[in-house]
Amino acid sequence: VSDPPKVAVIGAGSWGTAFAMITAGKAVRTVLWARRVELAEAIASRHENPDYIPGFELPPALEATHDMEKAVTDADVVVMAVPSHAFRVILDDVLPFVSDRSPLVSLTKGLEQGSLLRMTEVIREEGDLPHSRLAVVSGPNLAAEVVRGFPAATVVACADDDMARDLQNLFTADHMKVYTNPDVVGCELGGALKNVIAIAAGMADGMGFGDNTRATLLTRGLAELTRLGVRMGGNPLTFLGLAGMGDLIATCSSKLSRNHRVGEQLAAGRALQDIVDNMQMVAEGLKTSRAVVDLASRVDVEVPISEHVVKVIYEGMSPAEAVRSLMLREVGAELQGIG
Amino acid sequence: VSDPPKVAVIGAGSWGTAFAMITAGKAVRTVLWARRVELAEAIASRHENPDYIPGFELPPALEATHDMEKAVTDADVVVMAVPSHAFRVILDDVLPFVSDRSPLVSLTKGLEQGSLLRMTEVIREEGDLPHSRLAVVSGPNLAAEVVRGFPAATVVACADDDMARDLQNLFTADHMKVYTNPDVVGCELGGALKNVIAIAAGMADGMGFGDNTRATLLTRGLAELTRLGVRMGGNPLTFLGLAGMGDLIATCSSKLSRNHRVGEQLAAGRALQDIVDNMQMVAEGLKTSRAVVDLASRVDVEVPISEHVVKVIYEGMSPAEAVRSLMLREVGAELQGIG
Repeated sequence: VSDPPKVAVIGAGSWGTAFAMITAGKAVRTVLWARRVELAEAIASRHENPDYIPGFELPPALEATHDMEKAVTDADVVVMAVPSHAFRVILDDVLPFVSDRSPLVSLTKGLEQGSLLRMTEVIREEGDLPHSRLAVVSGPNLAAEVVRGFPAATVVACADDDMARDLQNLFTADHMKVYTNPDVVGCELGGALKNVIAIAAGMADGMGFGDNTRATLLTRGLAELTRLGVRMGGNPLTFLGLAGMGDLIATCSSKLSRNHRVGEQLAAGRALQDIVDNMQMVAEGLKTSRAVVDLASRVDVEVPISEHVVKVIYEGMSPAEAVRSLMLREVGAELQGIG
Repeated sequence: VSDPPKVAVIGAGSWGTAFAMITAGKAVRTVLWARRVELAEAIASRHENPDYIPGFELPPALEATHDMEKAVTDADVVVMAVPSHAFRVILDDVLPFVSDRSPLVSLTKGLEQGSLLRMTEVIREEGDLPHSRLAVVSGPNLAAEVVRGFPAATVVACADDDMARDLQNLFTADHMKVYTNPDVVGCELGGALKNVIAIAAGMADGMGFGDNTRATLLTRGLAELTRLGVRMGGNPLTFLGLAGMGDLIATCSSKLSRNHRVGEQLAAGRALQDIVDNMQMVAEGLKTSRAVVDLASRVDVEVPISEHVVKVIYEGMSPAEAVRSLMLREVGAELQGIG
């Protein structure tokens, strides 16, 4: 990372903008790329992101553009903050301008549909970057709270220790502690798969159960994501950290979570189509639940909670029947498949 | 475990009674020992525990007595459900009647004051039982919700696999899934030390922070308990489970938690003495916070969140200053000291 460094953040949604505010808030030149030219112009002229973070003044060091070449050229660090379904296409526009030493940092949660690849795997396919230039940032980082300066922490995962520490220094701020973790696979999977558990937690809340049920679902839900993560090459202890348990708790606690709301409404007996028709944005967990079950079946790992969420969403099983069926399953050792 | 088995539960508080209801609810003869003769008589005559679980009818297979000999003699399993400060004294009354094959199962959360011993260590000191007869049950099990039949899960920890499975079968019920874990140390420490984190979470909520801060505190708080647990011989992955993360989430979510309320009121600027004077029962975390810091300093482990809770409670540091100080700490690898 050169001095003074330049950071490019690709994607001006709420998390991309909030993240750009962290580096720009430290007077690091930060260029935010927006897909829509009107949004780029609005941010550049008004120093505010009216669509995603209205009412917050952006730091002077934050610039905005719709021009990918301008955003990425000479950037010491390129941060990808676009939705998973658009990741590969936008990446192809990014890569020609990335200098041959700069790292790519993914903030994107989710797997690619169909291929079920993680975002850093997509980068490897398209750009053939070495692992030392691939990083992930993940943690309990709801954008609306980060821009308010509420204390939080996150993890930067990179196989290369020196790169991890450089990025840690760059992203650390008064209100954001940054830890390092060499386990890219675990950090990436935690965030990609958590939403299915948020739907399950929403169902339990909607059925009127209390804190025991919720805590049990989060813990056993994370256990199945951990089993899957271990099978994919991740470190089980990463799931005990900010990108695993931390992100899961924040996601399942948030009153604004669309996934949680879907679960509550399923518990109330509403049909999926009816719920989806009445939501302005898609709940990510609806796609994730299928991805978790597909991935688990590919690598032969048991994910009973995710399977039951899929049955409720797509196969007409009632939430009450799902609870009965889960409680009747025979279980054994708590850490089976984990360590 | 003989057939038909007899279970003795020592301690007729809310969790002891709720736990006795699990086995008795399966028509297993269960004898509940109460310290106060009036409570034992009330339970025996009215089939209700009016002091701790009012309004719930106890199963016919549940008996109550104040007579320790009667409760423990011929019991196939003896379950200890008394507060940590009374554990050793009551244990001395229990041991003479325990058959030489029966396991002792501890439900007690907390360390012995002064010695900082875990409850199974106290049993080893007093009774010299083999590890195969020592077990711990711990998990997200708020008694008020267990008696309502809300789905939950828990862990029975025992170094002996066969014993663990016997106890698993005995304690499993329609609304209670039981997992096994050979790691007694980890399961016991999770429950013993969690309350200090609940106070910290209460402080953060009282200061008006949101879900990111709360999730970060729970995760990094659990990381320091895990470091401590690993140093004491526990398996770090146990803290990812029901007796670690699960219990912590339930404790920190509960609206009824005294520890959480203490934290909130400290954040509001009230003096500790004033808070304590207005509480009917003592918040366990006030003692736990000192125990965590003492234990950590004995074995040379860093527990910054717990240290700051102690500073706020006992040394007049303001919660705002504690947050500043914690956020300014330099940090490194997320899993340092864990694995």
